[in-house]
Amino acid sequence: MGTSADLAREAIRRCRLLAACTEHPGHITRTFLSVPMHEAHHLVRSWMEGAGLEVRVDAVGNLRGIYGSGPRLLVGSHLDTVPDAGAFDGILGVMIGIALVERHPACALEIVGFSDEEGVRFGIPFLGSLAMAGSPVMDAPVLDAIRAFGLDPAQIPGAAIPGDVRGFLEFHIEQGPILAGLKRHVGVVEAIVGQSRAVARFTGKANHAGATPMDARRDALTAAAEWIGAVEALARGTRGLVATVGRVDVEPGAFNVIPGAVRASLDVRHARDAVRIEAVKQLRAQAQSIAQARHIGCDWRAVCDETATPMNHAMVEALGAAMRAAGHPDHRMISGAGHDAMILARKVPTAMLFMRTPNGVSHHPDETVLVEDVEAALEVGIKFLESWRPS
Amino acid sequence: MGTSADLAREAIRRCRLLAACTEHPGHITRTFLSVPMHEAHHLVRSWMEGAGLEVRVDAVGNLRGIYGSGPRLLVGSHLDTVPDAGAFDGILGVMIGIALVERHPACALEIVGFSDEEGVRFGIPFLGSLAMAGSPVMDAPVLDAIRAFGLDPAQIPGAAIPGDVRGFLEFHIEQGPILAGLKRHVGVVEAIVGQSRAVARFTGKANHAGATPMDARRDALTAAAEWIGAVEALARGTRGLVATVGRVDVEPGAFNVIPGAVRASLDVRHARDAVRIEAVKQLRAQAQSIAQARHIGCDWRAVCDETATPMNHAMVEALGAAMRAAGHPDHRMISGAGHDAMILARKVPTAMLFMRTPNGVSHHPDETVLVEDVEAALEVGIKFLESWRPS
Repeated sequence: MGTSADLAREAIRRCRLLAACTEHPGHITRTFLSVPMHEAHHLVRSWMEGAGLEVRVDAVGNLRGIYGSGPRLLVGSHLDTVPDAGAFDGILGVMIGIALVERHPACALEIVGFSDEEGVRFGIPFLGSLAMAGSPVMDAPVLDAIRAFGLDPAQIPGAAIPGDVRGFLEFHIEQGPILAGLKRHVGVVEAIVGQSRAVARFTGKANHAGATPMDARRDALTAAAEWIGAVEALARGTRGLVATVGRVDVEPGAFNVIPGAVRASLDVRHARDAVRIEAVKQLRAQAQSIAQARHIGCDWRAVCDETATPMNHAMVEALGAAMRAAGHPDHRMISGAGHDAMILARKVPTAMLFMRTPNGVSHHPDETVLVEDVEAALEVGIKFLESWRPS
Repeated sequence: MGTSADLAREAIRRCRLLAACTEHPGHITRTFLSVPMHEAHHLVRSWMEGAGLEVRVDAVGNLRGIYGSGPRLLVGSHLDTVPDAGAFDGILGVMIGIALVERHPACALEIVGFSDEEGVRFGIPFLGSLAMAGSPVMDAPVLDAIRAFGLDPAQIPGAAIPGDVRGFLEFHIEQGPILAGLKRHVGVVEAIVGQSRAVARFTGKANHAGATPMDARRDALTAAAEWIGAVEALARGTRGLVATVGRVDVEPGAFNVIPGAVRASLDVRHARDAVRIEAVKQLRAQAQSIAQARHIGCDWRAVCDETATPMNHAMVEALGAAMRAAGHPDHRMISGAGHDAMILARKVPTAMLFMRTPNGVSHHPDETVLVEDVEAALEVGIKFLESWRPS
């Protein structure tokens, strides 16, 4: 049994090793049930088994290791990544779960590596935690991917957590600049912002870029560009709102062809659901009025709408007490990112502990963590496991 | 020997048949030396040989058939397409060349199917005609593609046209709305607009779409969107100018990641070189000032700059006379599109005849031609071949 600093260094080393399990060598890209997820499972399973966990992969590809017996607390995060990701988003929370087991706590635990939180492969996030919460996504392409990975969709109901689970604790990097700005190691999440995703599809008419005068064009990309500007302007003008267009697909996509169709993704978040819902409504209306003024079409597809999620009050207070017991100020914060904790909170008492993200950089190869912050998270976790009993 | 109407119908039928030689079944996409270009060559070679031409494929993949002996006139156009193209852009000019041979003219001809005009595969247009004009593109990826197609880059100098070639005549669809608006079958091209292509690359910082406040972002896509609006505004405000952003690549390209880098293509055209050059200069400056104001980077790569190209005066007059002899008004026009004729005009007397594009739709599956317009082009071609002698 190492010191917290040893365990923190080992957790970081393991994250960097898992970074090599990637769809694109030289970058970190590991989506839901992709081929390199097999390799990631091999590695994580070996560490789990080394720590004495009983390990299985459930039917949606969550890697799950049980420690001890009786009603258990879930600890974990996700093993999938965004394209060209950093090494710590999600992964570190699973490694910290294993490190906690290596300290031989007195309570039963289940350490979980969720198969999908980012939603990159199918545009649907939380495929892993939704199945554990008893609301699996049963779309045909997802089921095909499950079969291709060697799993059996008929077993998906068996992924749901049993009724006697005591709660879910997720350790995660902040992925934002707040703890770094305050020079703090860790913070307790009180609530996770609500999140809407949608796709706006603009349809004009592909035509020759040289022979078609400007006034005879129905350019889907100039329409999309105008709307992307409107998305940014609305978010900048609304306190606490973030809105992002992260993906743009242009058809046909050649130098000398006026774009005939453009699909643009939208991601909108706010701690207050009413603000988020109103923003999405306005952005949809703006997409349609921009398209109409340009004599082109606009289809809107809502992908998901997650309401803001408060964390369990008793667990938050217990984490705050554990922070103080470990010698840290009891800092409370809001998560701007969605997490598996949002989904598990529907079923069991749930809380999150954030670790500082130096420079606030995440979803990028420069993403990093400091040993002292991981060490602080481990010590808070140990204090929490010693004291917490569900009410 | 069929009537002009029979030959026109057959030329159209052949274009539709070649449309099946595609990289993406259900769409027409046939780029430089792609696998389906082999199939297109098989078909065109069979028609050329059936018409009595002596056929070869030169070392950059141009398909060339010689009729008669002695100094010859080149007739042809390109066999490659844009992605999701129509069936007639380029192809029809090659089919009309073969149809002219089927009328047994008294002069020697070489019918040419150029291997690349659109520049889709490598972002460099005119790979076929540049080699015939003695200025081949010798970039390593192009040479690799030549080898992969079974050709020998060492033979590229042999693709250059001999010194006694009498000229080049290109039949092509207009790809714009002008002849259709005037209800005319055909028009004589007096000049081809100049054309600049460039790539603007905006580099910000990828980061988490939920955890990064709006004022802490360096979003490459919102910068690119602002610039795309500036491109459209400048072109709308400058008489005769067209400017198009046809391609956008967003990295990393996920719902929940702020774009870290965006590459956007630019295509600018005008009949006056000075206007085009000034427009490109302004758009480059605007890209840089937009990037600077947003604290992100902007790289600019000029891809090509083709000056405006006047057609050969004597050939234009002879085509005008042939138009009148065939019973059509001698309509003169400017080509807004670039053509292989721009490149051949550097070496030999060159002219073009445009056929009407119904609805002005090109670079799109809805692209079409009318039998009566192809018939008119053939009759003008026959009159031209009967009368024209280079000065």
